[in-house]
Amino acid sequence: MPLGEFELIAKYFTLPVRRAALGVGDDCALLRQSSGMQLAVSSDMLVEGRHFLSTVAPDALGHKALAVNLSDLAACGATPLAFTLALALPRADEDFLSGFARGLIELARAHDCELVGGDTTQGPLNICICVFGEVPIGQALLRSGARAGDRLYVSGTVGDARLALECFRDKVGLEGQDFSVVRRAMERPEPRVALGISLRGVATSAIDVSDGLLGDLGHVLRASSIGATVHADALPRSTVLAAQPLQVQRECTLAGGDDYELLFTAPLQRNAEVQAAARQAGLAVTCIGQIDAAPGLRLLDAHGQPIAQQFAGFDHFL
Amino acid sequence: MPLGEFELIAKYFTLPVRRAALGVGDDCALLRQSSGMQLAVSSDMLVEGRHFLSTVAPDALGHKALAVNLSDLAACGATPLAFTLALALPRADEDFLSGFARGLIELARAHDCELVGGDTTQGPLNICICVFGEVPIGQALLRSGARAGDRLYVSGTVGDARLALECFRDKVGLEGQDFSVVRRAMERPEPRVALGISLRGVATSAIDVSDGLLGDLGHVLRASSIGATVHADALPRSTVLAAQPLQVQRECTLAGGDDYELLFTAPLQRNAEVQAAARQAGLAVTCIGQIDAAPGLRLLDAHGQPIAQQFAGFDHFL
Repeated sequence: MPLGEFELIAKYFTLPVRRAALGVGDDCALLRQSSGMQLAVSSDMLVEGRHFLSTVAPDALGHKALAVNLSDLAACGATPLAFTLALALPRADEDFLSGFARGLIELARAHDCELVGGDTTQGPLNICICVFGEVPIGQALLRSGARAGDRLYVSGTVGDARLALECFRDKVGLEGQDFSVVRRAMERPEPRVALGISLRGVATSAIDVSDGLLGDLGHVLRASSIGATVHADALPRSTVLAAQPLQVQRECTLAGGDDYELLFTAPLQRNAEVQAAARQAGLAVTCIGQIDAAPGLRLLDAHGQPIAQQFAGFDHFL
Repeated sequence: MPLGEFELIAKYFTLPVRRAALGVGDDCALLRQSSGMQLAVSSDMLVEGRHFLSTVAPDALGHKALAVNLSDLAACGATPLAFTLALALPRADEDFLSGFARGLIELARAHDCELVGGDTTQGPLNICICVFGEVPIGQALLRSGARAGDRLYVSGTVGDARLALECFRDKVGLEGQDFSVVRRAMERPEPRVALGISLRGVATSAIDVSDGLLGDLGHVLRASSIGATVHADALPRSTVLAAQPLQVQRECTLAGGDDYELLFTAPLQRNAEVQAAARQAGLAVTCIGQIDAAPGLRLLDAHGQPIAQQFAGFDHFL
């Protein structure tokens, strides 16, 4: 007996809501609003072959689909509230659905983010989530707030997700345990929600690293009308990536993408607060450069010499 | 020179916002909240071959993608505020994009609904919109509020969209002008936003007719734990549909789907207010039956005799 659309929703995607006024099951969900807060909204769509490989485990895919959306809330310093899930599936495959729902809901619970609605349809696999968070009015971390003299920081490590992709492409070979480490970075990114919240009132700008660190930094530079100097070889990386040739390290850390770490700026004199926010979030943050009044990006090596090579941010249509 | 993702967003999908605190261009959009209001949220995903045919004009598709989402707000009595658009495209085709954006934005402007964010990616054509509206706390029209003795109403006419689909399938033949009328109903549905707002405090329940009137009525009956009697041949239909054989008329009106009219209930003594709400919205509404305490659906013909035939609501996986 095939599983119908409404049974599918009832079985896998209907959960009790505690904070929302109305969850899955009507034409709209209804969200309560807190006074003094703004609603932060973001939407990301994941397509097979672009955002994930067909080899990914369903629960990892469920995790990642929500993680990349929560990462956008993190980049604004917003506290997660709720999300909608729209899902196109080639067929109602219960093995896939149970794994996908498990990974999705586990991460949702960890961030107290309620599934309140959505849509399911037959079609080429496509996952579209819209996530809602709240942030005190005027305190959202924006791309446009970086100022000359600010330090530039990144959380955690970058580059492992791209290294994993190169392994899947057979361009790099890694031993079992090393491969597991970087594969996990690619398939199960942890959105830096706690760090984003801790950086409210401390960071002057923030963005999450999804299209490659330099590409994403470029958005901040344009939005803030400033430039930056980045110490390329100071970018934090895992021991697995650090064992690769320097050129691979640079490509993965600077232009890798899919990192979902926070790239943010803060005034020099707030460094202690930045470090306190990082400790509170249980994460390392590393200063990787500074914001300059002069436009453009200056990329320096470990000796302070310019790196001439161009690194591209990821563009879905180029 | 191919159009990149960020150029594409800048060229077609970046519009100034007036009501939202922050629109397209950061990790999240920021929405202002009005006191005394709840946020209503809905998301619908459209896939080629399921929700639209490859023959549809891009501007009609842009219109319909937003219309079906606004229709969910209408069914809750919510006033549109904003929406996000996530779009997977096989390629960045400027002819398609300019038409699509035109149809989308024209309808958005007509309903004062701001595009505040979203995502674009390469992939099989998929359009996912998440729409936000607001409704006074406690006044949302829900599926669960129908009560025994209520009258059952539907707005406008139903069945034309299905008749158009049957024409595209070569199951029905229509002359030029007649075909244009039903094709327009299928491709350019008008969300009944004004009617939904006028029905706040008057209707006891509402749903929009998207999967077929009987299927959607079934959701109301289950949510409200009641039954209904429907006068099948009293369903409002266009003169084009009324010229078809009775069996075609019944299939299209009862199980057609894609109508985006409002199906709602109201107490008998509020009929004058229902009619006033309809006049205010510039629409006809027709009483098509009543709500019964006894569970189940009783379908009667023009002579009050039971119709034995089964009509299915549309299910994407059955």
